[in-house]
Amino acid sequence: MRDLARRPELLSINTATVRQRWTLPQIIAGCAAQGIRAIAPWRDQVAQCGLDIAAKLIKQEGLRVSGYCRGGMFPAADEAGRQAAADDNRRAVDEALAVGAECLVLVVGGLPAGSKDIAGARSQVRDGIATLLEYARPAGMRLAIEPLHPMYAADRACVNTLGQANDLCAELGQGLGVAVDVYHVWWDPNLEREIARAGKSNWLYAFHVCDWLVPTRDLLTDRGMMGDGVIDIPQIRGWMEASGYDATIEVEIFSAENWWKREPAEVLRICRERYAQVC
Amino acid sequence: MRDLARRPELLSINTATVRQRWTLPQIIAGCAAQGIRAIAPWRDQVAQCGLDIAAKLIKQEGLRVSGYCRGGMFPAADEAGRQAAADDNRRAVDEALAVGAECLVLVVGGLPAGSKDIAGARSQVRDGIATLLEYARPAGMRLAIEPLHPMYAADRACVNTLGQANDLCAELGQGLGVAVDVYHVWWDPNLEREIARAGKSNWLYAFHVCDWLVPTRDLLTDRGMMGDGVIDIPQIRGWMEASGYDATIEVEIFSAENWWKREPAEVLRICRERYAQVC
Repeated sequence: MRDLARRPELLSINTATVRQRWTLPQIIAGCAAQGIRAIAPWRDQVAQCGLDIAAKLIKQEGLRVSGYCRGGMFPAADEAGRQAAADDNRRAVDEALAVGAECLVLVVGGLPAGSKDIAGARSQVRDGIATLLEYARPAGMRLAIEPLHPMYAADRACVNTLGQANDLCAELGQGLGVAVDVYHVWWDPNLEREIARAGKSNWLYAFHVCDWLVPTRDLLTDRGMMGDGVIDIPQIRGWMEASGYDATIEVEIFSAENWWKREPAEVLRICRERYAQVC
Repeated sequence: MRDLARRPELLSINTATVRQRWTLPQIIAGCAAQGIRAIAPWRDQVAQCGLDIAAKLIKQEGLRVSGYCRGGMFPAADEAGRQAAADDNRRAVDEALAVGAECLVLVVGGLPAGSKDIAGARSQVRDGIATLLEYARPAGMRLAIEPLHPMYAADRACVNTLGQANDLCAELGQGLGVAVDVYHVWWDPNLEREIARAGKSNWLYAFHVCDWLVPTRDLLTDRGMMGDGVIDIPQIRGWMEASGYDATIEVEIFSAENWWKREPAEVLRICRERYAQVC
């Protein structure tokens, strides 16, 4: 396993972690100031400062972009909705290319409004990714399916296990991989096996860390700093690296009541410490 | 599939559904008053009114007891803790026998305090169930593992899919089965297959219904009345019955901000309506 204390350049900050108090230019400058060499920006933050400016600032600082957040949200109640999602996803691929991202992260979407047909939503996701791949593959942008925790199956993503994501990758082929976020998958009894399966096929594109707090007070915005919860992060990272993963460790923390309220430079400092000590 | 509108006797009320405003004797009388023929009581409510009295009232009204809630909570930080759990679980078996329950529901427990070892917790669960089976099997009390939603993996149950529960049943043998609660398993892409597997081995012991609300505002106590959420309950019930399930449909709703605040007789009336119309 890689010794993270000696590999500070592998730390990536997902910009959601400090998004409440800093704009994207502030985050880029703040990371550079602390020697953080990689980020994963969100589309709305990029839109806010302008794509050209974002791309220029990232390039100026020489930052690695571990992923671009995010494409997906494929299922819709009608064809017009699916077409709008398809159009928007192609724009997301273009933006990911512009900022030099290593992959476009896909949060695939849940049930269309009023629907109880999760199998149908999953089928729409499959078709949506297949279509987007036809655009992304020749453009050279990799797509990374992020399986989300089953508690998001209805409203955010109906791909809820790494096994499901791997099945899609196996079916749809080259240019499609997975983003493994410990928060979403730590509970899965098949996790080690599915990481190995993804590694064997070289589609482990990204690795995200935070922690599962006990108790968890909110389904979306009560995620913990690494080390403050119950996830055995080194074990999962060990499975990733034993399976050939050699890219960044991306910190992504949604925390409305704690980390989002703190001074962003302090948050980044603590991310660096925990990255080196407990990941 | 059974026509529930013509089979009112299959409706069971898990007493948690109306526990905030009624004691167990009130719930028993309230169910009897509305022609509800089955309940699933909780241990603390039984203890509050006394086991003998609870058993007598249930018998007087001729109520079926679809399950007894609950045994489990096997993992502990040390041997003394595991022994205390084992002792308590034997008492739960005795109580389940006294009230004439069709099974003792097992919520197996999560990580011991301070632990990040979910594989170890799962191993403790396996051993705990094996030991309890030696007591329950000759006594004639069936044990029903209830896989809980993965969002409870840390603090309530580290058996999080029906597949895991089925694996335990296959390993540990006669007298062990599963309680399938749509709230916990509706998202699982392998659900139909695992229900069929359980049915083939005749260990589908219980079926619980409520609904998944969007948004869900609390991890534990924001469950919905059947029909108010996104779960395709008839589809899952169809899989159960196609697999040979012929017991009750048990309504279990944890709802601190809505159903627990309402007048219990009204809640029971709505349970009866929804049972007949949307389950």
